[in-house]
Amino acid sequence: MPNRVSDRSTLVLPLGAIEQHGPHLPYSTDLLVAEAAAQAAVERAGDDLDLWLLPALAYTKSNEHAWDTGTFWISATTMLSVLDDIGRCAAQTGAKRLALLNGHGGNTALLGVACRELRLKYGLKTFLLHPMVPPDHGGASTANELGMGIHAGIDETSMVMHLRPDLVDMSVAVRNVPEGLAQNKHVRFGGSVSFGWLSNDFGPSGVIGDPSGSNPELGKRLFDGCVTTLCEAFSEIEKFDFGR
Amino acid sequence: MPNRVSDRSTLVLPLGAIEQHGPHLPYSTDLLVAEAAAQAAVERAGDDLDLWLLPALAYTKSNEHAWDTGTFWISATTMLSVLDDIGRCAAQTGAKRLALLNGHGGNTALLGVACRELRLKYGLKTFLLHPMVPPDHGGASTANELGMGIHAGIDETSMVMHLRPDLVDMSVAVRNVPEGLAQNKHVRFGGSVSFGWLSNDFGPSGVIGDPSGSNPELGKRLFDGCVTTLCEAFSEIEKFDFGR
Amino acid sequence: MPNRVSDRSTLVLPLGAIEQHGPHLPYSTDLLVAEAAAQAAVERAGDDLDLWLLPALAYTKSNEHAWDTGTFWISATTMLSVLDDIGRCAAQTGAKRLALLNGHGGNTALLGVACRELRLKYGLKTFLLHPMVPPDHGGASTANELGMGIHAGIDETSMVMHLRPDLVDMSVAVRNVPEGLAQNKHVRFGGSVSFGWLSNDFGPSGVIGDPSGSNPELGKRLFDGCVTTLCEAFSEIEKFDFGR
Amino acid sequence: MPNRVSDRSTLVLPLGAIEQHGPHLPYSTDLLVAEAAAQAAVERAGDDLDLWLLPALAYTKSNEHAWDTGTFWISATTMLSVLDDIGRCAAQTGAKRLALLNGHGGNTALLGVACRELRLKYGLKTFLLHPMVPPDHGGASTANELGMGIHAGIDETSMVMHLRPDLVDMSVAVRNVPEGLAQNKHVRFGGSVSFGWLSNDFGPSGVIGDPSGSNPELGKRLFDGCVTTLCEAFSEIEKFDFGR
Amino acid sequence: MPNRVSDRSTLVLPLGAIEQHGPHLPYSTDLLVAEAAAQAAVERAGDDLDLWLLPALAYTKSNEHAWDTGTFWISATTMLSVLDDIGRCAAQTGAKRLALLNGHGGNTALLGVACRELRLKYGLKTFLLHPMVPPDHGGASTANELGMGIHAGIDETSMVMHLRPDLVDMSVAVRNVPEGLAQNKHVRFGGSVSFGWLSNDFGPSGVIGDPSGSNPELGKRLFDGCVTTLCEAFSEIEKFDFGR
Amino acid sequence: MPNRVSDRSTLVLPLGAIEQHGPHLPYSTDLLVAEAAAQAAVERAGDDLDLWLLPALAYTKSNEHAWDTGTFWISATTMLSVLDDIGRCAAQTGAKRLALLNGHGGNTALLGVACRELRLKYGLKTFLLHPMVPPDHGGASTANELGMGIHAGIDETSMVMHLRPDLVDMSVAVRNVPEGLAQNKHVRFGGSVSFGWLSNDFGPSGVIGDPSGSNPELGKRLFDGCVTTLCEAFSEIEKFDFGR
Repeated sequence: MPNRVSDRSTLVLPLGAIEQHGPHLPYSTDLLVAEAAAQAAVERAGDDLDLWLLPALAYTKSNEHAWDTGTFWISATTMLSVLDDIGRCAAQTGAKRLALLNGHGGNTALLGVACRELRLKYGLKTFLLHPMVPPDHGGASTANELGMGIHAGIDETSMVMHLRPDLVDMSVAVRNVPEGLAQNKHVRFGGSVSFGWLSNDFGPSGVIGDPSGSNPELGKRLFDGCVTTLCEAFSEIEKFDFGR
Repeated sequence: MPNRVSDRSTLVLPLGAIEQHGPHLPYSTDLLVAEAAAQAAVERAGDDLDLWLLPALAYTKSNEHAWDTGTFWISATTMLSVLDDIGRCAAQTGAKRLALLNGHGGNTALLGVACRELRLKYGLKTFLLHPMVPPDHGGASTANELGMGIHAGIDETSMVMHLRPDLVDMSVAVRNVPEGLAQNKHVRFGGSVSFGWLSNDFGPSGVIGDPSGSNPELGKRLFDGCVTTLCEAFSEIEKFDFGR
Repeated sequence: MPNRVSDRSTLVLPLGAIEQHGPHLPYSTDLLVAEAAAQAAVERAGDDLDLWLLPALAYTKSNEHAWDTGTFWISATTMLSVLDDIGRCAAQTGAKRLALLNGHGGNTALLGVACRELRLKYGLKTFLLHPMVPPDHGGASTANELGMGIHAGIDETSMVMHLRPDLVDMSVAVRNVPEGLAQNKHVRFGGSVSFGWLSNDFGPSGVIGDPSGSNPELGKRLFDGCVTTLCEAFSEIEKFDFGR
Repeated sequence: MPNRVSDRSTLVLPLGAIEQHGPHLPYSTDLLVAEAAAQAAVERAGDDLDLWLLPALAYTKSNEHAWDTGTFWISATTMLSVLDDIGRCAAQTGAKRLALLNGHGGNTALLGVACRELRLKYGLKTFLLHPMVPPDHGGASTANELGMGIHAGIDETSMVMHLRPDLVDMSVAVRNVPEGLAQNKHVRFGGSVSFGWLSNDFGPSGVIGDPSGSNPELGKRLFDGCVTTLCEAFSEIEKFDFGR
Repeated sequence: MPNRVSDRSTLVLPLGAIEQHGPHLPYSTDLLVAEAAAQAAVERAGDDLDLWLLPALAYTKSNEHAWDTGTFWISATTMLSVLDDIGRCAAQTGAKRLALLNGHGGNTALLGVACRELRLKYGLKTFLLHPMVPPDHGGASTANELGMGIHAGIDETSMVMHLRPDLVDMSVAVRNVPEGLAQNKHVRFGGSVSFGWLSNDFGPSGVIGDPSGSNPELGKRLFDGCVTTLCEAFSEIEKFDFGR
Repeated sequence: MPNRVSDRSTLVLPLGAIEQHGPHLPYSTDLLVAEAAAQAAVERAGDDLDLWLLPALAYTKSNEHAWDTGTFWISATTMLSVLDDIGRCAAQTGAKRLALLNGHGGNTALLGVACRELRLKYGLKTFLLHPMVPPDHGGASTANELGMGIHAGIDETSMVMHLRPDLVDMSVAVRNVPEGLAQNKHVRFGGSVSFGWLSNDFGPSGVIGDPSGSNPELGKRLFDGCVTTLCEAFSEIEKFDFGR
């Protein structure tokens, strides 16, 4: 790698999670989606855009699921330290761009912090992308989910049905939508006031959304769309210079 | 305080910043706006909603302005520790709700992290509000600013002209908008791909937006609107129980 | 600020506390005294001595009152980190002197540590001043208090009666002096052997001293004397060069 | 997972590294060997011994290669924190045994520390296994390597030729053995006196050993032997109770 | 030890330093004085007062001498961590009292912090004693030294001449007193305003005081006096209960 | 010291421990052995090899004995910080070699980590020596102890009987060997699989080995042999240059 990475290169770091996704999805959902999306995008556009795929971070900040006995999570300050180490090494490769491709919504705020830290400390241009933008960060969600399909809902479930059907058990997939939230004007997912939540604040289900009706065709469509979007984004990243 | 704070109470913590705001605005801009907004909202709705105003945090995470020789900033992990201390003490008062009223966009991601940490560690219901939602977090910005009035632009400048006209010098207020960014579909303020930036990535001005045309009347309108919105939000917060 | 601060300037950082001060004084006692004293001294001598008043640190190391449900305190290592951040930024302004004006006795030892750390790490000349030197650090105390008026006693109470009479309730002001300590030759406040104490080690009162007889006239006299002393001290600070 | 892991289960965590392995081997050498060995052992003995394979840690403590511009390494204290997080979550699953299957010799000392920390803090029985015990920790090495085949030598190279021949370029595989060390009685790899070393202390090669003569047949033999040994070890682990 | 330490016992921890003491005194000056004083006091009064002598901390916070190439110093936060570990273990012995017998003035402020931390965290009664109280903490100093004999002056030098004459070289003992400081009313050693200093702020000598005239007779007198004082103090400590 | 330490010098840091050693040996066993061995070796070979003896670290990582109420232990990260401080200062002396002479087996892994850290961070050549190599790190142990005399067994007991007979009470010296471990092929002291253990995992005795038959003659032989070995090792260390 050190021989060929250049200041034109973008390093791509997928970030997953090992956390409960309701009874119907695997613990590794976020990891497998992030890795598949990263791999597909790098395969499609890597040569053109000089993308370099790094090994994924499997364990990340999943403490909203700390109540669940199978979730593995890294604390906020430890994860900042890990990202600092990775940023320091990324800068040493000679690349100028590091793209965090994050499959887990619970990481988004922390990665926002890290992007600035690494920009300041190592001079890297840093980017934060998602296979699917979570609805609580401005992404879309179905009407049936009242805009709250943020964890193990129809889109995510369909994606896994497309990528790893063997790991999905739709017979235990059950809707859990905190409907009362929809009546709030400000304090709601994606509202002007955000709030600290744990996934069991919305009941014991572990799901926040509605997986019913999930299907691999939708999953394929979403996945293909996401890869296309990622490639477009990487193309902007390659040329990115703060609008100058 | 310990005698009267109850599980119905909401503690309100304003967060400012001491950072450059271009040549025309004071270093304490974010602090004075957050304090004024918090004070006005608590005065209007405090008795009804049992709000308790805490002293502001003046120094916060302003490292996007680290290049400037007058900016004072606290590092990310230190600020997480400060917020952890405050959360621990807030929980000990008997209150169940802590509202972070944040005047500085550079804090938003970190406070998103902190809201979850305090929810998990101390059982507090935690909320993150802004006097003005920054455009890079979904807020509005004028057409003239191409949606990029995120620092010392017309809205913020007008607000300070209303609150502390003695501290504004419009004679040195100059537009600085990274117009190239507007051509990006994904990598832009408020776009699907966020990026790490320092305020001097956009030139030496220190401003990101367009303060020209700022006026105290607009400032008053914005401020009054913001107080009304905060009061509405506090009312939702008082009743908030995760949609259950 | 960056344009005008010079190597002749002294930055002044007031430090308060949010902690119980017995039933008769407000939680913000140390904050309001430190801010008032700093403001008055800077108003009087600031132009002459090129003093720059920084926003106060409201929350500091008050863990001797951790048992009280309204006290907000920052841990020792976190506060050292905050002071390190502030020292780093202070040095970047171009000023060579940083004066810590500390209103809370529980901070004194830690600030002594910090003064050396910042001197070594950033080359700043650092100073530690008090509006009133606490009796356990060599300051005076009345005979009635047996030299132990270290918290919410007559001097401090009088000072607040002068500055913010609306916040004092003398009807609940009660003497609490650990008289047994006076019999010790070594292990006592200000003795040759210091000891770790929490404010409830001396009973449930929260007071250590005797507020009875407090009055605003005494408060005014003390406050004026303290401002005069601070101005004298700042004058020595301006010329200070380690006796060379 | 939480439904089926029991106090009989052993969780298996592979640890790799992303570090230079001379010009002829891939950066991911340690990762792919650890993952392949773990997978093979769990496939063969997992049902019998109730083994649970966790996702690997790809980035670990490779700072002996910090001089190389493609190495990614995590600092010692950060890695201890990551392992603490993983240990805490492992204990919460209900499993009583955590086996660290470590492919990178540079981790061995740190993992020895971590095994005790997690035993004390979380009550876990912890184990440290290697696909190949490094010669500097008591493992074997060929006479040609003078017992110093500790990095990218014949055994490791052969193993990768067996597992991922596409990633090996034998045309650039060159012997580098610090022969002078062999004359020491005490201060040598595996001697009674250990010493701190960086891989470039032995010259610019990056190799410590002799890859010449490597071949996939040897690799297959070593790999099969290692899997058999691991299965034997897991069987002892399942019954392990400190010799009681 | 665990069999005989009781809630009546006092654990005594000597703290030294390894730091320059001018050209005439050994680096271990503070260590040997603290150990000798502790040993003598425990021998004299240990049976009566149930004192338990712990091994000394040799390396402590000597960063005011960081410029000197033979000084070994521990950072402030690390030393707080060491003291936290020792406090935790001290509390586990069943003793209720921990006495820090500190031979190095540069530790005094930090130990003041630690005394409170250990009181709060482990419920220990904690005490801070000095063989000689440093003049900058209220102790005495000769007129010739203008009250500034704080490092390697006549008293300390005489003490070492008494205890370890073989380690003193009076032929290179030279006076260094920052006389200008004596003109300050506030900012001076032991004044109402303390300041951060490094020992080379007062010139390259390393001495702050005047060792000339030092003699073992004075040293013996001082040492005997100090042991007597320590025994008196330990007697107060044994009965200490916050004046209740 | 700063005047005479040169790049030829080796600094020697003894490391002991304050931990239970069964009922028959003193808590300071590891400290006194390490100090005696270091002193004897430096006396014999110090002039020739330019060895400099540093004060010992008495308190180290003894958390395998945390269950015992007289053990004092420092946490892993704190001890790494202490060693970092010492390494930084050692490098500043001008010496190029730092030898850790470790009397406590529980430190060995951590010191292995530290040797690399200090090599990388400060450029020091670092070495780890033991008075006796512990059997779980490849050292010898008697047949009677089944190779498991790792704590308070015959060798260590004999050594203390030689050095400090007044501190040994053979009347309470009792064998405790976890015999079941000997049946394991892999998971055993010194086996290919190491494991995390606490000393009470092997029963309440505190001993792991067999002290019966200990005698000062054996102790003298072992001690003399160890000093001879250390001198040989220091001689190799003086010339050590990574086999180049």
